[in-house]
Amino acid sequence: MSDPAAKSIPGTPLPEGTVADLGEFGLISALQRRLPQGSDVLIGPGDDAAVLEVDGASVVLTTDVLVSGVHFRPDWGPAYDVGRRAAAASLADVAAMGARGTALVVAMTAPADLEVAWALRLADGLRDEAAEVRASVAGGDISRSTELAVTVTAIGSLEGLRAVTRSGAQVGDVVAVCGRLGWAEAGLAVLSRGFRSPRVLVDAYRRPEPPYVAGPAAASAGATAMCDVSDGLVADLGHVAAASGVGIDVDSSALDVAEPIQAVAAAYGMDPLHWVLTGGHDHALVATFGAGSSLPEGFVVIGEVVTGEGVRVDGAEPEGLGGHAHFSR
Amino acid sequence: MSDPAAKSIPGTPLPEGTVADLGEFGLISALQRRLPQGSDVLIGPGDDAAVLEVDGASVVLTTDVLVSGVHFRPDWGPAYDVGRRAAAASLADVAAMGARGTALVVAMTAPADLEVAWALRLADGLRDEAAEVRASVAGGDISRSTELAVTVTAIGSLEGLRAVTRSGAQVGDVVAVCGRLGWAEAGLAVLSRGFRSPRVLVDAYRRPEPPYVAGPAAASAGATAMCDVSDGLVADLGHVAAASGVGIDVDSSALDVAEPIQAVAAAYGMDPLHWVLTGGHDHALVATFGAGSSLPEGFVVIGEVVTGEGVRVDGAEPEGLGGHAHFSR
Repeated sequence: MSDPAAKSIPGTPLPEGTVADLGEFGLISALQRRLPQGSDVLIGPGDDAAVLEVDGASVVLTTDVLVSGVHFRPDWGPAYDVGRRAAAASLADVAAMGARGTALVVAMTAPADLEVAWALRLADGLRDEAAEVRASVAGGDISRSTELAVTVTAIGSLEGLRAVTRSGAQVGDVVAVCGRLGWAEAGLAVLSRGFRSPRVLVDAYRRPEPPYVAGPAAASAGATAMCDVSDGLVADLGHVAAASGVGIDVDSSALDVAEPIQAVAAAYGMDPLHWVLTGGHDHALVATFGAGSSLPEGFVVIGEVVTGEGVRVDGAEPEGLGGHAHFSR
Repeated sequence: MSDPAAKSIPGTPLPEGTVADLGEFGLISALQRRLPQGSDVLIGPGDDAAVLEVDGASVVLTTDVLVSGVHFRPDWGPAYDVGRRAAAASLADVAAMGARGTALVVAMTAPADLEVAWALRLADGLRDEAAEVRASVAGGDISRSTELAVTVTAIGSLEGLRAVTRSGAQVGDVVAVCGRLGWAEAGLAVLSRGFRSPRVLVDAYRRPEPPYVAGPAAASAGATAMCDVSDGLVADLGHVAAASGVGIDVDSSALDVAEPIQAVAAAYGMDPLHWVLTGGHDHALVATFGAGSSLPEGFVVIGEVVTGEGVRVDGAEPEGLGGHAHFSR
């Protein structure tokens, strides 16, 4: 066999240090530099999902892993809801490209002493969340491990629409969001403190309700850029701004800060806006549209695309609102 | 929200016990009974890969998870080879449907102290194995965890061919294999005993060479059934026999027992045929063809399809040759 070192792409030396040192986004960036893309990859790494040409069709493909203790805790809710959440994470990525998820394949790693009933209820949750978009759980793999984890890969169909990437936002576009912001993050804060109410927030965390149909609707309405809010509104708009080479101004007065979020924030002595700006578990969709566009049902304007870079909230750079970053400590 | 219990499929009660009690195949079977398939699922769970209709195209999709300590050990070989093996496992499943893998998406879970260099070399291995079939690594996800695991999902194109399932074997067909049998399993036995030679066997384990082009070639030649040898020849032919409702007779004198395998078996006081009949890590392809068919290059006849059920080797039921079964103890 040939020396594997001989096949490395020139100019991509191996850095020292751990993945914690580099951080999630640094690691992803380093990985992407080593991965050339073939001609049948229409959209490659760096967006919510890849888009591939297969026998003349455009196929959307995305994978998301949920790890016990990181993305869910078995004692915070039933297996059924873990299945719903796991499927929602991938199906929302498909929607964020303007597509409809049509099938899932699922890899599960589990300790040998996991209850069969837990695994079957997980499958029920995956199945029922997939059914929200008429998708099927079409296959999978199971392995023994010490750690419980679920990797859901979704495939989707654009049904003739053009995929909406993160990189098409234009100066002058409006920024609009569809779906809840902050509900699930507030619910997670409640659960983290050992509480179970307000139930409406805990349920929002356990079983998010991404606005799936809004994805293709936004594509159909000519959205210039889109992503799902999985890292938090500021962080995800930051991805759009960076990919598009623009700045984004958010008007916080346009953001809906729901009453239960206000109540919990008051009880915990927190600013409710923090959850709205940084919470990712609701899987809302945020998109940009040309000024004067007729927005699809459910989208609310929350800001505008400007020259420059980065995201400003009410004219100021947000601090401590970077959203989720795995591996950081 | 509605009561999730109300959405369970009637007649599918939740069994008691652990996944170890039920075993891998029992769990998969129980899962499949809970998962109805939509009309765009052309081939669902139970084959090497799913086949889905997306905008008029037939798309092959399969996922495989490799867990550190179960499917690989970082001290048994470099990250690059783990990447090659991980990609090979999924791409061989695509080939076993008669298709060519065109893209991978990869989910990795890793402890925060994993060296960045290890992750990047893993990606190099994934990239180079994918390049064997002109596929790209088009996306992925990364999460912190306590356990290192890699889930590779492959998408593939049938390029106009009809997918070959496990269920089409007909009485009177010949059974033929393409690729190595037993090499990687013998290499694993060597590594498990703390040795590093014969190098040719260790390399076969670290970096399998599935006969990717033989998959579409077999489909083109009219193969009636096919699967990749990932659980072991006897176990995988057992899957074909069960899915097709036939029996399979294997003639062990037709199996190539390579010299290095014989040498290691002699040294360890083992029957070399054991590895050939039960080893799965080489990802050979085994297929059935109508009697008198002209076999594609590389396929060697090793048996025939008969009435009845199960797999016989030289006329006898093999004992202790069930192949890999996760969760069993």
